Amino acid sequence: MSRLVMKFGGTSVADLERIRRVARLVNAEVEAGHQVAVVVSAMAGKTNELVAWTDGAGAAAQGLPPSDDEYDVVVASGEQVTAGLLAMTLRNMGLKARSWLGWQIPIIADDAHGRARIDEIPPEKLGAALDAGEVAVIAGFQGVTRDGRIATLGRGGSDTSAVAIAAALECPCDIYTDVDGVYTTDPRIESKARKLAKISYEEMLEMASLGAKVLQTRSVEMAMAYNVPVRVLSSFVEPGEAPGQGTIVCDEEEIVEKRIVSGVAYSRDEAKISLFGLPDHPGVSSAIFGALADANVNVDMIVQSHARTADTANMEFTVGKRDAQRAVEIIRANQPQIGFEDVRVNEDVAKVSVIGVGMRSHAGVAKSMFQALAEKGVNIQVISTSEIKISVLIDAAYTELAVRALHAAYGLDQL
Amino acid sequence: MSRLVMKFGGTSVADLERIRRVARLVNAEVEAGHQVAVVVSAMAGKTNELVAWTDGAGAAAQGLPPSDDEYDVVVASGEQVTAGLLAMTLRNMGLKARSWLGWQIPIIADDAHGRARIDEIPPEKLGAALDAGEVAVIAGFQGVTRDGRIATLGRGGSDTSAVAIAAALECPCDIYTDVDGVYTTDPRIESKARKLAKISYEEMLEMASLGAKVLQTRSVEMAMAYNVPVRVLSSFVEPGEAPGQGTIVCDEEEIVEKRIVSGVAYSRDEAKISLFGLPDHPGVSSAIFGALADANVNVDMIVQSHARTADTANMEFTVGKRDAQRAVEIIRANQPQIGFEDVRVNEDVAKVSVIGVGMRSHAGVAKSMFQALAEKGVNIQVISTSEIKISVLIDAAYTELAVRALHAAYGLDQL
Repeated sequence: MSRLVMKFGGTSVADLERIRRVARLVNAEVEAGHQVAVVVSAMAGKTNELVAWTDGAGAAAQGLPPSDDEYDVVVASGEQVTAGLLAMTLRNMGLKARSWLGWQIPIIADDAHGRARIDEIPPEKLGAALDAGEVAVIAGFQGVTRDGRIATLGRGGSDTSAVAIAAALECPCDIYTDVDGVYTTDPRIESKARKLAKISYEEMLEMASLGAKVLQTRSVEMAMAYNVPVRVLSSFVEPGEAPGQGTIVCDEEEIVEKRIVSGVAYSRDEAKISLFGLPDHPGVSSAIFGALADANVNVDMIVQSHARTADTANMEFTVGKRDAQRAVEIIRANQPQIGFEDVRVNEDVAKVSVIGVGMRSHAGVAKSMFQALAEKGVNIQVISTSEIKISVLIDAAYTELAVRALHAAYGLDQL
Repeated sequence: MSRLVMKFGGTSVADLERIRRVARLVNAEVEAGHQVAVVVSAMAGKTNELVAWTDGAGAAAQGLPPSDDEYDVVVASGEQVTAGLLAMTLRNMGLKARSWLGWQIPIIADDAHGRARIDEIPPEKLGAALDAGEVAVIAGFQGVTRDGRIATLGRGGSDTSAVAIAAALECPCDIYTDVDGVYTTDPRIESKARKLAKISYEEMLEMASLGAKVLQTRSVEMAMAYNVPVRVLSSFVEPGEAPGQGTIVCDEEEIVEKRIVSGVAYSRDEAKISLFGLPDHPGVSSAIFGALADANVNVDMIVQSHARTADTANMEFTVGKRDAQRAVEIIRANQPQIGFEDVRVNEDVAKVSVIGVGMRSHAGVAKSMFQALAEKGVNIQVISTSEIKISVLIDAAYTELAVRALHAAYGLDQL
């Protein structure tokens, strides 16, 4: 009997009526002959409420390091609630079901609390429950460390839970969300955005990491690594209605008609940190980024430039806004090793990117990007590129303007 | 170094400001040289919110058996949140602290979900944490079954968690609540109620089981069984202020001046079930109460009376209101074995009781009780007695009148 993982995000389980809708979608897959594992997020708004409490109880206000292991204890409770409620609802529909928490399966994670990574999911217990005809309702977003503490996987971590479970169970993963697929760009910004029937893992990875919030980045990495077929589709369907085809995330080889640019993504979640007056000798970058890596701060775009005076350099890079103040503190604490003259933070920036596997074989993509932005008077602060994407950091005020200009420039409104 | 368990109920941790107040009380005990384990309830109102969701998702509406294991998964999340928040707050005050959930200690419980009993608490892990100078912040109300499911201990179960942990750690237990001790009766009904300096385990047990909501019944049973010194005191003190002496719950022998009656308690949480036309032969009671016991329905007062016609009897008994409909269904399902003619439920009843270890050596307590009630025109439906208490079931409308009459009749306003 074929297995299927279904994942439902916070808006899909926001209240009991929506949980019943989810239960009907699960029931339809059971009736279609699947063994089903369901991964759920916290009810919409709940995680924010819990995070606000941890902020109030937490160390941030007093400049002490955050108690991230206890943060995880608090915020992981949201998914626990949804898992119990959905299991009850499924039983009411006459299905066999039970909830599974991270420590029960177990979903073994490392101890980078608040942003933990899944190490291992032994499939035995879940598999036995599925074989016994029971729907497994799994609390997303959470795992357990090897010494038995709760660890959460970071915002959107339920996607990663779902894909990791699909990898463990060797089955496909359907991600139900509040949109009916992956779009060429955010339809709230550009009404001409189109839904993509298919997108490659690599493109989706860039989309996700660049701020298209449909899937968490790590879930896509994991899907690519374990070759898990992922489908993004909408949970907002009426009783009896099918959820549509959504967007399939798959290997590049399975996509016949390749586009040069598949989408335009943006992110306002980053902050730019600028270091001035760095000594121009080997080991400086390593001192900066080594210290940040040790503290689990992810660094994204990096640009180094030489000052006009001979012996010093400047460095600009971006980190998540949540980490910005901490990054600055770490850098200041390492001033003797690094030797900079000044450090500044700018949180008023946005990253806008164009993505497409077709870039590999087409020149001129960057040129048309810079041209389109220049025509609208958008100043570019930092540029970074990969094989299949080009990102620019700009003043946040120009975000929507830039997204629409690029969407039009690559003809994405005419797919 | 001496150990101490401190327990804080829902109103004591209702918001972040109150959690900080709790943290100050904990800090004071740490500074006084104690190793402290803190047991916390869910923030006031949270458990009700969670229970309401389970009602909405649950089977009650459709007459199916409730999914109590999943109910436990949902409601246990409330204490998890408080434990994490208090641990964070204590760390902010510079203390070492961490949260402990039921499955982490573990608090091993049976699988009577929603009303589970604690089987065992291995003290090793907690003890090691305390010895390492860490405040242990424990989620109350929850345990884990031997097969790894969450089990909750019933309303007020955090008291039982606290006393069980004190028993495991062989130390005293301070129960902080929203009142400053145990009173001769509910001060909201009788303004002349007085605080007791000491009360015996047995009296407290009767008080608790009869509806004085200061401590959960089972917590008192456990304190008596393991001889855990318990103190009830108020958490509502200002910074720098001491929480007062509260009421000490202890062995009868430690109370020098014994009163005949120590308190008047009442409960509106029961329903009366009446069975009419029962066959008058052996085995009928066993058929009724065996079936209820198998379904984990607790029965309290029982009265059997013979009908005027020769061959049939009537039976009246009380169960918790929450169980009343289920009890009736169980009885109806067992009609062939029991053989009654009719069954009725009356939820409009209250139980009023007088309690005192002095009753053992004083006659006439019952007489003055019935006299005082008769003078106020209160009709008695069922009577039950123990060595140290007399309870009567009356029309709920007369509750306050009866409580005040009895409080005066035994001179409790003149302690």
